[in-house]
Amino acid sequence: MERQYVIDLKEGARLKQVFLCKHKNLPVDRNGRPYLTLTLADRTGSVDALLWEEAERQARGFTESDLVHVAGKAVLFQGRLQLHLTEIRKAEDCPLPATEFLAASRVDPGQELDELVTLLGTVEDPALTDLIRVLLDDAELMEALRQGPAARTIHHAYPGGLLEHTLSVMRLADVICANYGQVLNRDYCVVGAFLHDLGKVRELAVSQGIHYTDEGRLLGHLTLGLQLLDRAMAEAGTADDAAMHLRHILLAHHGKLEHGSPKRPKTLEAFVVHRADELDSALTSMKEILEQSSANGWTAYQALFDRYLFRGPKKS
Amino acid sequence: MERQYVIDLKEGARLKQVFLCKHKNLPVDRNGRPYLTLTLADRTGSVDALLWEEAERQARGFTESDLVHVAGKAVLFQGRLQLHLTEIRKAEDCPLPATEFLAASRVDPGQELDELVTLLGTVEDPALTDLIRVLLDDAELMEALRQGPAARTIHHAYPGGLLEHTLSVMRLADVICANYGQVLNRDYCVVGAFLHDLGKVRELAVSQGIHYTDEGRLLGHLTLGLQLLDRAMAEAGTADDAAMHLRHILLAHHGKLEHGSPKRPKTLEAFVVHRADELDSALTSMKEILEQSSANGWTAYQALFDRYLFRGPKKS
Amino acid sequence: MERQYVIDLKEGARLKQVFLCKHKNLPVDRNGRPYLTLTLADRTGSVDALLWEEAERQARGFTESDLVHVAGKAVLFQGRLQLHLTEIRKAEDCPLPATEFLAASRVDPGQELDELVTLLGTVEDPALTDLIRVLLDDAELMEALRQGPAARTIHHAYPGGLLEHTLSVMRLADVICANYGQVLNRDYCVVGAFLHDLGKVRELAVSQGIHYTDEGRLLGHLTLGLQLLDRAMAEAGTADDAAMHLRHILLAHHGKLEHGSPKRPKTLEAFVVHRADELDSALTSMKEILEQSSANGWTAYQALFDRYLFRGPKKS
Amino acid sequence: MERQYVIDLKEGARLKQVFLCKHKNLPVDRNGRPYLTLTLADRTGSVDALLWEEAERQARGFTESDLVHVAGKAVLFQGRLQLHLTEIRKAEDCPLPATEFLAASRVDPGQELDELVTLLGTVEDPALTDLIRVLLDDAELMEALRQGPAARTIHHAYPGGLLEHTLSVMRLADVICANYGQVLNRDYCVVGAFLHDLGKVRELAVSQGIHYTDEGRLLGHLTLGLQLLDRAMAEAGTADDAAMHLRHILLAHHGKLEHGSPKRPKTLEAFVVHRADELDSALTSMKEILEQSSANGWTAYQALFDRYLFRGPKKS
Amino acid sequence: MERQYVIDLKEGARLKQVFLCKHKNLPVDRNGRPYLTLTLADRTGSVDALLWEEAERQARGFTESDLVHVAGKAVLFQGRLQLHLTEIRKAEDCPLPATEFLAASRVDPGQELDELVTLLGTVEDPALTDLIRVLLDDAELMEALRQGPAARTIHHAYPGGLLEHTLSVMRLADVICANYGQVLNRDYCVVGAFLHDLGKVRELAVSQGIHYTDEGRLLGHLTLGLQLLDRAMAEAGTADDAAMHLRHILLAHHGKLEHGSPKRPKTLEAFVVHRADELDSALTSMKEILEQSSANGWTAYQALFDRYLFRGPKKS
Amino acid sequence: MERQYVIDLKEGARLKQVFLCKHKNLPVDRNGRPYLTLTLADRTGSVDALLWEEAERQARGFTESDLVHVAGKAVLFQGRLQLHLTEIRKAEDCPLPATEFLAASRVDPGQELDELVTLLGTVEDPALTDLIRVLLDDAELMEALRQGPAARTIHHAYPGGLLEHTLSVMRLADVICANYGQVLNRDYCVVGAFLHDLGKVRELAVSQGIHYTDEGRLLGHLTLGLQLLDRAMAEAGTADDAAMHLRHILLAHHGKLEHGSPKRPKTLEAFVVHRADELDSALTSMKEILEQSSANGWTAYQALFDRYLFRGPKKS
Repeated sequence: MERQYVIDLKEGARLKQVFLCKHKNLPVDRNGRPYLTLTLADRTGSVDALLWEEAERQARGFTESDLVHVAGKAVLFQGRLQLHLTEIRKAEDCPLPATEFLAASRVDPGQELDELVTLLGTVEDPALTDLIRVLLDDAELMEALRQGPAARTIHHAYPGGLLEHTLSVMRLADVICANYGQVLNRDYCVVGAFLHDLGKVRELAVSQGIHYTDEGRLLGHLTLGLQLLDRAMAEAGTADDAAMHLRHILLAHHGKLEHGSPKRPKTLEAFVVHRADELDSALTSMKEILEQSSANGWTAYQALFDRYLFRGPKKS
Repeated sequence: MERQYVIDLKEGARLKQVFLCKHKNLPVDRNGRPYLTLTLADRTGSVDALLWEEAERQARGFTESDLVHVAGKAVLFQGRLQLHLTEIRKAEDCPLPATEFLAASRVDPGQELDELVTLLGTVEDPALTDLIRVLLDDAELMEALRQGPAARTIHHAYPGGLLEHTLSVMRLADVICANYGQVLNRDYCVVGAFLHDLGKVRELAVSQGIHYTDEGRLLGHLTLGLQLLDRAMAEAGTADDAAMHLRHILLAHHGKLEHGSPKRPKTLEAFVVHRADELDSALTSMKEILEQSSANGWTAYQALFDRYLFRGPKKS
Repeated sequence: MERQYVIDLKEGARLKQVFLCKHKNLPVDRNGRPYLTLTLADRTGSVDALLWEEAERQARGFTESDLVHVAGKAVLFQGRLQLHLTEIRKAEDCPLPATEFLAASRVDPGQELDELVTLLGTVEDPALTDLIRVLLDDAELMEALRQGPAARTIHHAYPGGLLEHTLSVMRLADVICANYGQVLNRDYCVVGAFLHDLGKVRELAVSQGIHYTDEGRLLGHLTLGLQLLDRAMAEAGTADDAAMHLRHILLAHHGKLEHGSPKRPKTLEAFVVHRADELDSALTSMKEILEQSSANGWTAYQALFDRYLFRGPKKS
Repeated sequence: MERQYVIDLKEGARLKQVFLCKHKNLPVDRNGRPYLTLTLADRTGSVDALLWEEAERQARGFTESDLVHVAGKAVLFQGRLQLHLTEIRKAEDCPLPATEFLAASRVDPGQELDELVTLLGTVEDPALTDLIRVLLDDAELMEALRQGPAARTIHHAYPGGLLEHTLSVMRLADVICANYGQVLNRDYCVVGAFLHDLGKVRELAVSQGIHYTDEGRLLGHLTLGLQLLDRAMAEAGTADDAAMHLRHILLAHHGKLEHGSPKRPKTLEAFVVHRADELDSALTSMKEILEQSSANGWTAYQALFDRYLFRGPKKS
Repeated sequence: MERQYVIDLKEGARLKQVFLCKHKNLPVDRNGRPYLTLTLADRTGSVDALLWEEAERQARGFTESDLVHVAGKAVLFQGRLQLHLTEIRKAEDCPLPATEFLAASRVDPGQELDELVTLLGTVEDPALTDLIRVLLDDAELMEALRQGPAARTIHHAYPGGLLEHTLSVMRLADVICANYGQVLNRDYCVVGAFLHDLGKVRELAVSQGIHYTDEGRLLGHLTLGLQLLDRAMAEAGTADDAAMHLRHILLAHHGKLEHGSPKRPKTLEAFVVHRADELDSALTSMKEILEQSSANGWTAYQALFDRYLFRGPKKS
Repeated sequence: MERQYVIDLKEGARLKQVFLCKHKNLPVDRNGRPYLTLTLADRTGSVDALLWEEAERQARGFTESDLVHVAGKAVLFQGRLQLHLTEIRKAEDCPLPATEFLAASRVDPGQELDELVTLLGTVEDPALTDLIRVLLDDAELMEALRQGPAARTIHHAYPGGLLEHTLSVMRLADVICANYGQVLNRDYCVVGAFLHDLGKVRELAVSQGIHYTDEGRLLGHLTLGLQLLDRAMAEAGTADDAAMHLRHILLAHHGKLEHGSPKRPKTLEAFVVHRADELDSALTSMKEILEQSSANGWTAYQALFDRYLFRGPKKS
């Protein structure tokens, strides 16, 4: 039986295949008998599922974040498809790559990486060009950047999200520099934007969902990014003064102590990278949220922004 | 005797002419005799001055913010020029324009106004083009925008500053829109940026210094700007929905309640105008502050940013 | 069958009539079959209801905030009445007025309006009496004030609540003025209290529940109230100075920027109106909350006040 | 030579008499010679004074807050009277009462005390009337209330200020109760208002200026007031429940933890006393500040309110 | 049938005995029939229970915090034991002491009390030794200290917890003093630590759970502790200066106004007691939380500390 | 002429020698003539000085923080010694060590270093002992620790202060561990305390006063300390898990994001080091401040603690 993606499921379809189990519950009915409620996912979306037969025994065989092999069929319930399962077990040796089960970027990472390299190619300061070469030549790092998410939830929380966000911040830094001319050192702004979130390749791990690593939780991506940068600068032989400025941009990019930056931006370039990062994060989150606004134009309450958002004026 | 600008004063020069009196003090020496210490200004800068003869009597004749007619000479003291005066009195009928005594913009307002009109000319939404025409046709308003300061102190605090700041925010809104494509309604972002600080033409008055008006202090430029906008929209016949969105952008542009916006940005467009405004204000203030940094690259403590600022990396 | 109010329901009563549907849920039992749980309301209160037959099909026919026609009977369950329904559908052409389905004020609005007019009649300043006349002559506005709620939830959240609150704030402003004699301008305090929440007639809409309007959420009742006031002052020919003071009182009545006032009170009169408003809102909320305190005198935790409240000392 | 009050000083007058020394400085001129600058006060106001002869020796003989005997004359300087002294020494055995040297209340304390007693006389609850009698019979306490200041600086900071403030809060509590009828227990509001600041008779000491006592600084007037109240309640035999409510009103009257109340108001009565106290303090401070506003109606920046204040609308 | 402790329950065991009912719910199944879900507890732990027969009738007979007599058996469900009951009723005359139903301290209170007395015995200042004797001689107070909890929830929330916490704070104060030598007055630190939470014997009541008393909620343990201390100092004849310092330590031990101290620590000794208290509370809470960390070393989110906690480095 | 220390100066003494110039001002008298006011310091204290002859010319020759060669004499003025100078010039080749001009520690650094080494010698975990050896063997680092200050101002702001503070925090961590037994990993607490402020050897530079380095201001001692630690751990071959825990303790020791820690303490050991650091800093600052309290026991207002401090109870 061919594998079916969540996005392609039809009412009445029967399936025997693997999904990622995102949520699992074992509530109990009035006779003290448990049944399973599940959320199953692949890279195209997620679907609710239920299982009543031998629920307790079957529930023992897997946990959340496992890949699971299920058998059942798709039924229409309250206008939405759900799966009624007869069987579920841990998928021990799933040959499919982990990315089959995670939300995916909607843009082409190859094209984005090209644009990123092109932007870095416009940097003229020789104190930075060697460092750029060392970083771009680190194939493992570049692959991690290309595959990495920028967050566990909220915005850019999917493989490729880190690259998308990094590139967008670089573009914003670039156009802001254009507006202020000689006032800003464009080279440092662009390279700083490139560097700012690199530490996320060690803060977040992707494997059947996106998780924080232990060092991610205890040290954070600013510190981890600094270690990556230090190693690359040692290899590139970056001069002390340039090194100090780049470290400061990276450390200060959260903008405020209470947002986890141990130092606040004290140079114009650190300030620009901080604000470009903040702007891209906020606008991308808002955009995603507004895609789920109601017919009346309003979203539900958004704790992230402590407000309701409203779809803005229509294009004429 | 020809009038001499502060910037052109030479040691030993004698002068009899008008300045703006910015500060005036009448301290007393140990014999109980007062003497006058003053700060005098024209549009090119300011200079300290002292007067010992009949200080008390002469001090009665004017107050701070008066134009004063002085006689004296320039002497070098501790490496800086100061004026030793023999005479000072209020300049009752000074034929010079007020702008002779205020700091001036370094850019050409005519050219800036052209760029602003050109940017507004790219707006396509017919719901907005009528409004734009009404506002641009209001010669008095356009002159006030061209002459107005954007603040009493800090950034853009000189005639022409309002136009400089408005144009810069419009440019930033424009390039941010370019980065996010169809997600943002560019027309509303650009027009919102144009409108956001218009109320300052009634909040601030220029006459021998920049002052807040009473209604500026009691109502603020958001409310005053809304009244200007309402009048123009009534004349242009702006549709209710467009009117509501523009009013929201204007009201929300301070971004937070505690910064004086009665509503926070709830549309993407209001958010973009807010962040573009904030970015231009901060970068312009920092730039001006950094021009006064010490030889070691650091500025004095800046209460506005609650930090010391550092001259960033040098251009290679 | 005669219509029965919630407050009059008896165990065993059968009914076929219209209610407002305030909440609607469609949970599912272990066989995958949904059932409906509802909260139904009229102006005397609300009651829970359940429906099992063809729950999914019937649920499609209406949404929350609809008027619904139901058939069923009242049963006693755990000491409280609930409705067991067999049928529910949207009530398309309900001839009853919307106020039949909303909580109602316990005081007589006619008598309150009389007292309000009487209080305004004591204002002596000719700069204000013309304005008062214009506002009282605006029949539509006065009707909106009389019918309007002062909030969507919490205190005075029912038709007539706006008038109740407005009058109470006027009374408090009046007695506070009496305590401080010539220090305060009583006329401005009383008129300011009258004006302070008028914008709520456009911020809130009543129709099967109380809802915020779009302009209410994007602009707020301070800005909307200012527009009402501006129009009335234009008609009354109010002098600029008086207009500025009244606008300030209205804008500043929330007292703090973070509560949505773009300017904080800077005159004694604006301060008095702010504090009278705050006092009436808090005391009325607390009073309503304390009516639901437990036998031991304590209420549940109140997020609004971030505390538990206690019934105070008994009257001797 | 008859004693002259500050308020009655005339240019050229010679005087030999006692003042309170509020400020004392010993600056030095360029020859390394010190001279004395002083602020001298009596109950009608204060005046600047200077002394050049043997300034250092004479300065050794007294400190700030001493009563000093001076000889000198009044001269007009910069439009204001100042004293030029030839002699100054500590006034060891000044026969005048301390109140001769402190700012005085403008109202009649006897009349105020009568009104306070009358208000307490309207209390009906027998659980409170015994306590009232015990307190009113404590002649020492009543005298301290009558003589005491309500603060060291800011509002009511003069002998009699405590009585003025206490009475005003009682009046406000009374009229607020009248507006809310049976909702509030008026007896507890009025008695609570009477009690709320009693502890200030031990927190502040008057002797050549107003000072905090050590226990005032380490324990505060809430705790000290509670001790006074506990003693009186023990004598009056106040019932436990009434005692608990009164203690709560007293402890909670600052309204917030961060303002020094260990518990926030949890009964309506505690809330009313808190708000009445806050209102009287704020309005009285603002009134005093506004008396010093400039010709343009604005005061200087007021750190207490974090704003500039504006004289409100004129009485017609 | 012998009574069985929760900790000793075995699958299949039948029991007829008394528990404390900590939580009680009466949800309803799809046929409108309620069933009971309960949490039952004794001093060794707690267990979930269900009851289906005549649930509504049986539920009427008791409320949360009652001791209940139950009949049923223990079944294994989802790997955990739960009780399926057939009968539940209020246990009217349970002969067992209340402590049988509360979590218990793991340390020996007798031994702790000995250590506390020994520590107090090292105090040398005669101004304090009389007071110590009065307090230790108050058998009722000492018994309340020995039996009392230090909190309703969180750390030390069991009989004996107050003694544990008090002793630990005394020990910390002692070793901190040792590190700073003559700088600190060790006697006041040790006695202050002993006194700091004594008021909790009146703030909290133990009877089938730990509850706040009314005076606990309206006055708090700082104020109640001060009353205990005042009485003991009156009996011991403590000198005014010593009394003031002890009162200050007690009042200030929460460290900040917003944590409920009406005065912040102003002496070194008050500061030390505050920090020792804070340290013991935090470490004890964290220790208890970490005992429930997952296999990966992390706990669930802890609102008390606004973070996730991690089991630290293992002992080598 | 033999060099005289500030602490030994006598009235009338003449001196020709070197001091550190801490403050320099050039005010002007009424004839427009400047004079110099100075604060001069050596390691025993500081003294005010004045110079009138050719003040402007002499002032050109040096700036604040210079070592200066002066000639003059000590005079008694207002009960305090001051220097009246006739000559001042920059001391170009002063043979004295910089420490001659800085406040000095009152304790013996050699003895302290011994105690620190002894404490580290009690660490048993082999994962840490190698690292300890590497650090103790780094002679340059140990010398920097021994010579370094712990702050630029406030507490421990003198050479040796870093060692004093580090040792005190280690001692506190040690005794806290003793109170909680097996709950805490004592080895990590002691080593973490040793490491916590090591980065200050690069954040602060001593040379005629204590100054922040550029990297100190842009990166901070947490980041700089982490780099030192990383290098030592690489050399010692510290295992990943131990490395992660030590890094976390170091990064988290400021306790809160807003105090500059990019991560807050998430292990008990990180929490203990944070609190021990905080306690030592606060107590040492308070102790120093209290040494300057007035006769009445109170200090001046202390912005650092936002309060006045009071000398606590006297030792009996």
